[in-house]
Amino acid sequence: MGVAEEIHEANKRFQEAIRAADANSMPSLYTSDAKVLPPGADAVSGGDAIERYWQSFFDLGIAGAQPKTEEVIPIGEYALETGQYSVFGQDGSEIDRGKIMVLWKNEGGAWKMHRDTWNSSLP
Amino acid sequence: MGVAEEIHEANKRFQEAIRAADANSMPSLYTSDAKVLPPGADAVSGGDAIERYWQSFFDLGIAGAQPKTEEVIPIGEYALETGQYSVFGQDGSEIDRGKIMVLWKNEGGAWKMHRDTWNSSLP
Repeated sequence: MGVAEEIHEANKRFQEAIRAADANSMPSLYTSDAKVLPPGADAVSGGDAIERYWQSFFDLGIAGAQPKTEEVIPIGEYALETGQYSVFGQDGSEIDRGKIMVLWKNEGGAWKMHRDTWNSSLP
Repeated sequence: MGVAEEIHEANKRFQEAIRAADANSMPSLYTSDAKVLPPGADAVSGGDAIERYWQSFFDLGIAGAQPKTEEVIPIGEYALETGQYSVFGQDGSEIDRGKIMVLWKNEGGAWKMHRDTWNSSLP
């Protein structure tokens, strides 16, 4: 598989973890020294803080999220992804949509999120 | 100069352009096929759209912005910067603060922003 395809597969696992509100498995999708830069909060880094962040995200009542990759720029052991996302509430309606920017890193043969950020496109 | 220092210098020019509300010179700080992913709006790409975006930003009455680099990951002809920013109003008060994530690219010997995004850390 090429890097774009591997990132596509990793994003499917990410999407599945969000659908299942599975904060526990979130750290495995990130590198060991990953950093998440979420809107409306300070940056968090490290597995424990990343798991807590996603738990707080799920506590808002999020039912699912759909990331859509628009480009993958492969840069050696790294790759930069940009794209869009939609977030859905419990009733299936879109409650947010926006843009993503993720630096992926190949860690031990697996592509993981190393720096992860996004913001809403809603005014 | 190393890449971190060159990015520091480029950020000083960026900061100066914001202080001067100089949308006209903004495209020169970006690569020819750059993309900006601003909060509250769709992504914009290309010099004209980037200039228009910054003009709309200045029209909000922004007096200045201060980016603070926290890390630069050099990756060949690219470099990934993360950090923080503060935005100031006309009376000098901080009206927003948040996080930045920028993919820089060496284009013709000069380091320019290639993918540029940020989001507020305020709740």
